[in-house]
Formats: sequence, C-alpha cells, structure tokens
Amino acid sequence: MLYIEPSEIKKAHRRISEHINATPVLRSDFIDDFFSAKVFFKFEGFQKTGAFKLRGALNAMLSHKEAGKLSGNVTAFSSGNHAQAVAYAAKLIGIKAKIFIPDFNSKFKIDATRKLGAEVILTKTRQEAEEEFRQEVSKGSIPIPPYDDDMIIAGQGTSCYEALKAGYKPDAIFATIGGGGWISGTYLATQLLHPACAVIGAEPANANDASISFRTGSIHKLKDTPSTIADGAKTLCLSERTFQYIKKLNDIIEVSEKEIIEFTQLLTAHLKITPEPTSCVAAAACFKWAVDSKNKGKTALVMLSGGNLDPELMREIWQ
Amino acid sequence: MLYIEPSEIKKAHRRISEHINATPVLRSDFIDDFFSAKVFFKFEGFQKTGAFKLRGALNAMLSHKEAGKLSGNVTAFSSGNHAQAVAYAAKLIGIKAKIFIPDFNSKFKIDATRKLGAEVILTKTRQEAEEEFRQEVSKGSIPIPPYDDDMIIAGQGTSCYEALKAGYKPDAIFATIGGGGWISGTYLATQLLHPACAVIGAEPANANDASISFRTGSIHKLKDTPSTIADGAKTLCLSERTFQYIKKLNDIIEVSEKEIIEFTQLLTAHLKITPEPTSCVAAAACFKWAVDSKNKGKTALVMLSGGNLDPELMREIWQ
Repeated sequence: MLYIEPSEIKKAHRRISEHINATPVLRSDFIDDFFSAKVFFKFEGFQKTGAFKLRGALNAMLSHKEAGKLSGNVTAFSSGNHAQAVAYAAKLIGIKAKIFIPDFNSKFKIDATRKLGAEVILTKTRQEAEEEFRQEVSKGSIPIPPYDDDMIIAGQGTSCYEALKAGYKPDAIFATIGGGGWISGTYLATQLLHPACAVIGAEPANANDASISFRTGSIHKLKDTPSTIADGAKTLCLSERTFQYIKKLNDIIEVSEKEIIEFTQLLTAHLKITPEPTSCVAAAACFKWAVDSKNKGKTALVMLSGGNLDPELMREIWQ
Repeated sequence: MLYIEPSEIKKAHRRISEHINATPVLRSDFIDDFFSAKVFFKFEGFQKTGAFKLRGALNAMLSHKEAGKLSGNVTAFSSGNHAQAVAYAAKLIGIKAKIFIPDFNSKFKIDATRKLGAEVILTKTRQEAEEEFRQEVSKGSIPIPPYDDDMIIAGQGTSCYEALKAGYKPDAIFATIGGGGWISGTYLATQLLHPACAVIGAEPANANDASISFRTGSIHKLKDTPSTIADGAKTLCLSERTFQYIKKLNDIIEVSEKEIIEFTQLLTAHLKITPEPTSCVAAAACFKWAVDSKNKGKTALVMLSGGNLDPELMREIWQ
C-alpha cells in the first residue's frame, strides 16, 4: 500500500513551482568517460536556500493553507538544510516559524536560518530538539517535519519530476537516503513519469540503517548518531511512511567515507559546482552501479540534494 | 581608433554559438545584501573546457576557415585555460594542434589538453613557450594567440553579449584583466548593446601592469612573472591591440591577494559554483565599487572567467 499516489507529485509541482528555482541538469564528458555511462546530475544546490528541502517545506505549508489550516505558527526541528527551508517558506507565506536546532550544528546554517526571520531555539541534542518540537505541536503549532509527512515527500519528488518532465529517460535514478523523504519523493515521481526506470538508494556504510532495513524487511534503528561526513544521512532510522516506498526500491548501495570524499572532489572539479558530501553519496553509488559490466553505456540520473558547505567542511574535503 | 567594430561581436556569436554553451547568469540574495547592490554573475566555468577561452579560440579558427585559410595545423602557447580551448576547438574542427606549455603548470590542465588530442610540448619558461610558438608559426602553422588577435577578442566578447542580449541592464560591468582579451571583448559587447554602461577592469595589486598602463597612458611591462593566486592575471603586459580598448575603460580597480581569496570563498559558498581566483578578482573589484556611497543600490554584472581549479588551488583557497 502506498500512502500517497504518484499523481500527488504533479499537484505538488503545480503548487510550488512559481516559488522555487527549476534547478538545472548538468553533465561532463570527463565524468561520462570515467563512469563508462551517460550520467546526468540534477543539482539542488541552485535551489533557494541551497537544497531540495524548500520543495517539501513549501508544499506542506501551501497544502495546509489551501485546506484553510495554516494559522498561528509553524514549527520544525532540523540539524541542517530543513531549518533554512522552513524559515524561508514561512517568511514567503507570512507565518511565524519556531525552529529547534541542536547547538553542535554549523553556525553558518544557524545564522542563515535566523537571518530568514525564524525564531531559532538551540538544544543540546537532536533528541531534545525533537522533544521540544513535539511539545510545541501539542500547544497548537503546525508541524513541518523533515521527512515523515506526505506533503513533504510529495514536494521532495518535484525535483526528479522536473528532470523526467524535461525528457530525460535514464535507466536508473540515484538518491541519498537520510530519513527517506528525498528518495520516497524521487520514487513516486519515477512511478508517475518513467516507471520502467530503476530507483536506487545510496547510503554511507557508516550510517546504513536504510540498507539493513531494506535487506531484512523491517526498520532498523541505529543506536547512536553515526559518524559520517554526509551529515544529511545521519538520521537514526526511517519512518514507517518512508519505509513503504524504500521497500520497493531496486537496490540500496553503501559507500565508504573515502568514496564520499573522492566523489565530492570529482563532481566539484568536473561539474564546477559545490555539491554537499551528502549529495555525493548518490554519485559514488552510481559509479559502483555503472562499472558493473551489465550496466556499461547505460544512462543514469543522480539527484544531488544540495550545495551548502561551510568553510570547515570545504577544508575537510580538500585536505 | 578601434581595431574592430563592436558589430564583430555579433558576427562572432553567430559563428560560434552552436558549438558553445550559453552560460548562465547567477545571483544570490546574500551577496546582494553584502554588496548593497544588485549583482549578477556570468559564469564561464560552465563553458566547455571550463573557461571563456573556447569562445575566442573557436571564433579565430572558424574565421580562418571561412576565409579558406585553415590548413596544416594550428599552434598556441598558454599557461592555462587557452591551451585546453585551442585543443578542444581544433578537435571539433578537425585540424591538428601543437601547443607549447611551460612545465611548471598544473599537471591537471596539461593532461586535459593532451586528452583532447593536442600535441603538447613542455618548455622551461613562459618566454621559451612563446619563442617556440613563434618558430612554429614561421614554419607555416596558424597562430591562435591567447589575446593579441582581433578574432580572439571578438570571441571573448560573446559572453557579455549573451548577458546583455538576455536583457540585463547593469550600471557597470566588471572583468579581470590578464593580457586584455577578455576585457576588450567585454568592452566591445557593451559598446554594441548597452553603451551607457560603465566597463571597469580588475587586477591583482601584485600584477597591476594594466592599471599602471591605464593611469600613465602607456603600456607598462612587469619585469618578472608576478606572484598572485590569480594565475590568469600573471601576463607581463598588454598588447598595443588590447590597450586600445583598455584606455577607454571607466576605471581599473586593484585588489589584494587576501581580497581575491575572500571573494573566491564568498562566491563559492553563496553561488554554489567553483570560480577560479582569477575570476574573483573582478568580484572583489565590484565590491569596492559597490560600497562607494554613490553606487549604493546600483546594478552590476561581474564576468567570471572560468572554473578550473585543481585540488592544490582548492586547498590553498580553503586553508
């Protein structure tokens, strides 16, 4: 059973398209040679606030608005790009946002969220941020969760929808898995426009909860926040909602920290963009797929989730 | 006296447009706030071979071809992006290329030039590369010089032409000066489509030969290769040809090495692209212009020349 129909992606796109950037699809001769495949990259770093997260946040808020249920204020918790997205969408729509962020997060992203006009409350841990978020919801705030929400998932699917709508016909589509919103939306968009295409998830081996869940058939939860440079993939587990879609993927490929850094460097050098390491987990997984002899010369679409890199992460990548 | 008419830019664009990428114009709310201006960036890092240089090289070769004068082989000397551009254009047109490159150059760029099928000859110095190039020309090869050529200049102007043609109406346009081909073409395109606009050159203070030439009215030659992270601006002096246009600029602004690095970081973080430090000389100059109270709220177009950064340069920028 699917929670939402693939056609929800089209509705989401109609709802948000005037407010977002239609992000470009990029490619490089060098990368095609290196992969022995035709590889296209959809880059959400060029999205407003620098990541795909705005798509979901906007779709959720505008859906609530359409239903006449957007009043008071919205609330969210996030360790990264979702915070900026919620702040931006709330400002655009003209509603207050209260966002809980663990204080070990990039000052860069925290400042950017405040600058967009949101009230930011720092917490000691991720668990505490989530707990305070729940209390805020119990007081009547409208929750805009990072992934466990149908309208968030539908919004995230609009990036892949744009690429497929533009006529790309890949053999396989790759996206990194965190909480599963991005890959679930991507899966739904593919079902809608190009169902013959494989949809393959990508995860750091150090944070392989979705991969274990996929293989065992039940949601696996990591005990502690995993250590990976791909900060968007640090989520402890999928939700029941996202697992429904993730179960149906063609595969989930795990990649090492070394591979994540190498592919971040490769894409930066050859596409002339700044993909986050989290994005490049999907590129590294695509490479593993592409070098399998049965996939030689095939066409792939790699969904690059965002481009928000602070200077410290830049140093870490290029050391 | 101008050597070529501004209308040559239009002809160049018609000649090369089917073979090149029409590069995008990018912007960022953060940068607009920071500059107190509306700033647009034309990014040639998305050009084939990663820099504007392909525009000039292709225009020169295709002009020779139209005139029935393209036979035998072409030759060039370069310490960087021009080499790859000549190699690419020669391969596209189907003519052999012999390119002289000083051996202290980035292995990255040398390898890329060879990979495009050009014969690469390494020399000990820049002077030796230029000398061998002249000998090759005396033996009948067709010269494709880096900047001292009308058709090269006309080709380089097509990037600014694209932006102005798309409807941008800046108050000032900024471009970094090396040998002067890029700024000369930019000046001509502006004369053609938006002559009321100021055209302002930018140079590292450590390599300020054009700035001195502009102020004194005669070409100043640096004694030694200057020390600057902006490797495209290391040229020792302008040519008579490029100085004719550079004399007519509204200003040339010098920037420090620290400013070049800071603006390279700023543009990378907020535009999500990888501009070369040479490109960002123009961004740093634009900032100096924008913070002058009389320019507050004005609109600027910054021409970003390319995006070819090797890993060592990346480390240097982010250290």
